[in-house]
Amino acid sequence: MALYQVSFEPSGKQGSCRSSRSLLDCARRLSVGLASICGGCGSCHSCKVRVLSGTVSAPTASERKILSPEELEAGWRLACQTYPASHCRLGVPPESMTTPHRTQVEGAEATAALEPAVRAYHVRLKAPSLSDLRPDAERLLEALNEENRLSCSEIDVEILRVLSSKLRSWGWECQAYVRSREVVGVGRRAGHHLGLAVDLGSTKIAGYLVDLSSGKTLAARGLPNPQRSYGADIVSRISHAVKSPLARRRLQQLAVGALNRLALDLCAEVKAKREEIVDAVVVGNTAMHHLLLRLPVEQLARAPFLPAVGAAMDIRARDVGLHIAPGAYVHLPPLIAGFVGSDHVAMLLAAGAAQAGGPVVALDIGTNTEVSLIDGGSITSVSCASGPAFEGWHIKDGMAAASGAIERLRLVGDAVQYQTIDGTAPVGICGSGVLDAMAQLYLAGVLETGGRMKDNHPRVRTCGEQREFVIVSEEERGGRAAITINQRDIRELQLAKAAIRAGIEVLLRERGRSENEIQKIIIAGAFGSYIDVGSAVAIGMLPALPLNRFEQVGNAAGTGARLILVSLSKRAEARAMPPRITYIELSAHANFTETFVRANYLGKEAAAARARKTN
Amino acid sequence: MALYQVSFEPSGKQGSCRSSRSLLDCARRLSVGLASICGGCGSCHSCKVRVLSGTVSAPTASERKILSPEELEAGWRLACQTYPASHCRLGVPPESMTTPHRTQVEGAEATAALEPAVRAYHVRLKAPSLSDLRPDAERLLEALNEENRLSCSEIDVEILRVLSSKLRSWGWECQAYVRSREVVGVGRRAGHHLGLAVDLGSTKIAGYLVDLSSGKTLAARGLPNPQRSYGADIVSRISHAVKSPLARRRLQQLAVGALNRLALDLCAEVKAKREEIVDAVVVGNTAMHHLLLRLPVEQLARAPFLPAVGAAMDIRARDVGLHIAPGAYVHLPPLIAGFVGSDHVAMLLAAGAAQAGGPVVALDIGTNTEVSLIDGGSITSVSCASGPAFEGWHIKDGMAAASGAIERLRLVGDAVQYQTIDGTAPVGICGSGVLDAMAQLYLAGVLETGGRMKDNHPRVRTCGEQREFVIVSEEERGGRAAITINQRDIRELQLAKAAIRAGIEVLLRERGRSENEIQKIIIAGAFGSYIDVGSAVAIGMLPALPLNRFEQVGNAAGTGARLILVSLSKRAEARAMPPRITYIELSAHANFTETFVRANYLGKEAAAARARKTN
Repeated sequence: MALYQVSFEPSGKQGSCRSSRSLLDCARRLSVGLASICGGCGSCHSCKVRVLSGTVSAPTASERKILSPEELEAGWRLACQTYPASHCRLGVPPESMTTPHRTQVEGAEATAALEPAVRAYHVRLKAPSLSDLRPDAERLLEALNEENRLSCSEIDVEILRVLSSKLRSWGWECQAYVRSREVVGVGRRAGHHLGLAVDLGSTKIAGYLVDLSSGKTLAARGLPNPQRSYGADIVSRISHAVKSPLARRRLQQLAVGALNRLALDLCAEVKAKREEIVDAVVVGNTAMHHLLLRLPVEQLARAPFLPAVGAAMDIRARDVGLHIAPGAYVHLPPLIAGFVGSDHVAMLLAAGAAQAGGPVVALDIGTNTEVSLIDGGSITSVSCASGPAFEGWHIKDGMAAASGAIERLRLVGDAVQYQTIDGTAPVGICGSGVLDAMAQLYLAGVLETGGRMKDNHPRVRTCGEQREFVIVSEEERGGRAAITINQRDIRELQLAKAAIRAGIEVLLRERGRSENEIQKIIIAGAFGSYIDVGSAVAIGMLPALPLNRFEQVGNAAGTGARLILVSLSKRAEARAMPPRITYIELSAHANFTETFVRANYLGKEAAAARARKTN
Repeated sequence: MALYQVSFEPSGKQGSCRSSRSLLDCARRLSVGLASICGGCGSCHSCKVRVLSGTVSAPTASERKILSPEELEAGWRLACQTYPASHCRLGVPPESMTTPHRTQVEGAEATAALEPAVRAYHVRLKAPSLSDLRPDAERLLEALNEENRLSCSEIDVEILRVLSSKLRSWGWECQAYVRSREVVGVGRRAGHHLGLAVDLGSTKIAGYLVDLSSGKTLAARGLPNPQRSYGADIVSRISHAVKSPLARRRLQQLAVGALNRLALDLCAEVKAKREEIVDAVVVGNTAMHHLLLRLPVEQLARAPFLPAVGAAMDIRARDVGLHIAPGAYVHLPPLIAGFVGSDHVAMLLAAGAAQAGGPVVALDIGTNTEVSLIDGGSITSVSCASGPAFEGWHIKDGMAAASGAIERLRLVGDAVQYQTIDGTAPVGICGSGVLDAMAQLYLAGVLETGGRMKDNHPRVRTCGEQREFVIVSEEERGGRAAITINQRDIRELQLAKAAIRAGIEVLLRERGRSENEIQKIIIAGAFGSYIDVGSAVAIGMLPALPLNRFEQVGNAAGTGARLILVSLSKRAEARAMPPRITYIELSAHANFTETFVRANYLGKEAAAARARKTN
């Protein structure tokens, strides 16, 4: 029996696999975290992988049923049905990974010509003597400028506070980190030259440690946003922040504390010191951006929802409380509006919005879902109040994407097949599971187009005054309370999905475009990467376009932040973006209410069809 | 009997004076603080004043004896001998004031074309609406730039932290304070527009509050430097600072604390808030400069005595711990060497060094005495270790210039005439008194040229192993210990005066100039303003030039700091000064030791004569 080397991207995990074992078996043994709802019988498509190199067994009948000829042609296979026939390398898309493996730090490696804002130079100085009485700072600047043909003229005061002793202890030789005309850091010869890119989300914070001399991401990590203790949603945090300057300071400290923690952990991973981080970029929604900088947020919560500042900013890291190189700056890309932040700018940058031609929709699903329509040279953006239902909030048995959460779900006749995070016994349903449930109930005819739950399925029952669908019964849970989804949950989800769909509709109408003209729908962000696009289309949250027009890009805001970190051109591109963007405030838009009401209907064609009817 | 209005400059004090009362009487009644050693009998010249306008009585015989015809011609008179004959305005030179009135904040009002680094603009903004969604910061910048044809592009983050609520509470109208392209402060319409100039001395700190819209000094104040608790001299403070980072921080906190206190007191005087101070300039010697910024000082105490940085600096006030407008900067003019600081640069600026043609000597006497020789386009500088004797330290009965200190002294036959600060009973001798004593003893033949005290005067006695001269005897003090000056005091003073004289000699030699070629000797600083120049010449501390070539300019460093505060051209002039200056490190200078030894001799001609002999 042959043994082959099998490796899985992007985790890089690899090991040997017998030709008699499926790729799913191999992935399980290597803890790749590959999803498998049906348990490996080939009846779902959750273990879909792509063969990047090497040969594998021929497609089975199940695969031919589930995958299109184009998909098979492109190398897509079900891992449970496929066996290695040589050494091979497989790509695992985010949606095929179980939640703990789909960390919020994913996203394509940033690719841009290396052009960091802070560059490193090696400097050798002449030691002082009675015939050469230049002060230490002038001595450094003159050697630096002469050796590297620069015209640096300043050294940050925090550097000056350590420079004299360091130059002496290093034998008049050092690495100088230069930003524009200022020295913002000094280090030993051959020290690290690091940058930090952060996507500061309301729920999660993703950090990337980047080598500014190579552009490579050395480490990536995620942390929950500790501000959650003051409310899961932005509005509760703003309400808290406006109570007192102390409260605002507290929220800032929590965010900065998390960033400092992240910097420390990332540095530990590559055995660096956080003083070796000489530049930083932080993107986030407008509220997170303002809370991090301790900017006022009162006016963000009141019409017309204005940011205190919209332009890109460069602030000394110490003025924010960020402990990196003492002279370093943190760059904050521009914001678009009160509810469309720099994370969206970063996402558009990563998605190549500036270069996109035909109509492209880019969205980042969350409590607020930012949607942009890129069409020719112009970008039009909206923010949809989609609410926290997709994060498991306001849903009877909803929960965050944690151990035991049902993350994928299929209805097979009277039975429910599901997959939980970590494969443990189910304890609730997270966002992607809820979305699947709604789609499956609609497709099975349990939900009407209007959202009403019918009593036509053995798992539907009435509890109190409302119907509910039993996903895991009391017996199946050994006597514990059943996990169900009820009529009120469905209504909550309808509001959420309608908000998103209505945002897309308004954008298309504004530009005089129809759904079918959309060339690509880019879905960014943690939640957007986990969902089954088919389910989202089935319930009418997203337009009914061929699935190959959808692209789930993971944390594109994080990718954008890294681009802005390693490339001054990308930084300039981001800075130039807001003037090109037309922001539409939905709450003030004439057609919004009726569009929103229509978008509550379920079904692929429902919303669009009704829209056509009304126009 | 006629009544006339009499006013005294620079204090501005005025009142009516009968034609039968002398100007000295009038000055006493108005608390002008005019000196009077002989008690008003016309035998000394300590109450010398200058008639600026109006007519007065004709000169008396005493005046004709004491004042030269040129002086009389120029309006100089003895206040005790002069009576008003009309309303008149009188100028009181610093040397004619008693010490408490000669505060260390004196100095000519800065005069330069008004051109402050931070300018004030009134801005009226359009209130936001759903059809005008510009963020608050952009709204301000656009209105500011449009109304005033500026191209501001930044607002400091500390301003942004308050801008949104302030703009709303002020009805979208404000005063914006702009530095280069950045808004560093905002205030109510018609708020103050203030600048702070500080001369940070080792002993005293002088602060000036300047109206940047008019260039006028609104208030001036002095404070003792609280770092004195860690040593009167710079070297002890450096020794303390290098003990630990905590010690360095403590010394910084003391200096910054005093500056904050000064800002608060100055603002209280004019009913302003310290947040209305939008720019600051601090000058000081190199050690004070470094301790204020918490820069390393180890290398200042070891040959070759290098500053950590020499160039002019602009630092956010908050990075120094200075509580003025939250976005304000503090400007620190350049340093010349480890022992020649920005106070000397400021003094040279105030003295018009750039414009001075013929050889001019400018010096600031202190523990370290900085001396510059301005000759044609070039400036040559030295720092002389003159020690603390002139501040009353290391002198048996020496004391600081405080209440009861003998500040002026004359020997009349066997008697000693003296004047104490506040006119109270004598408790000791301060610097100017010590200098007078030495000169009077030398002129009376009690001191030999070499400094030995002879036993040829009834007030000379031997106490223990050395001779001493009794200034106030036990009987004269009603049984308390006598106030004396002994041989060891004389030796200490010789070292001090020799250091200064040797510095001047080295400079002249270096430029190939002789004493007689010196057109002007500018004496700056607190001590230098109080001394009797005649005494300083008598003992050979200063060259024997006609007295009208000496100019006592008060706190010229403070005047220079104010010039740098109100004028960007003066700031540029100060910045350009160090490259024009040749600094000579005396300890490494070939001829220094012999020059110094020679300069120990007393007498007007002694040092010079011996110098000529040797050459």
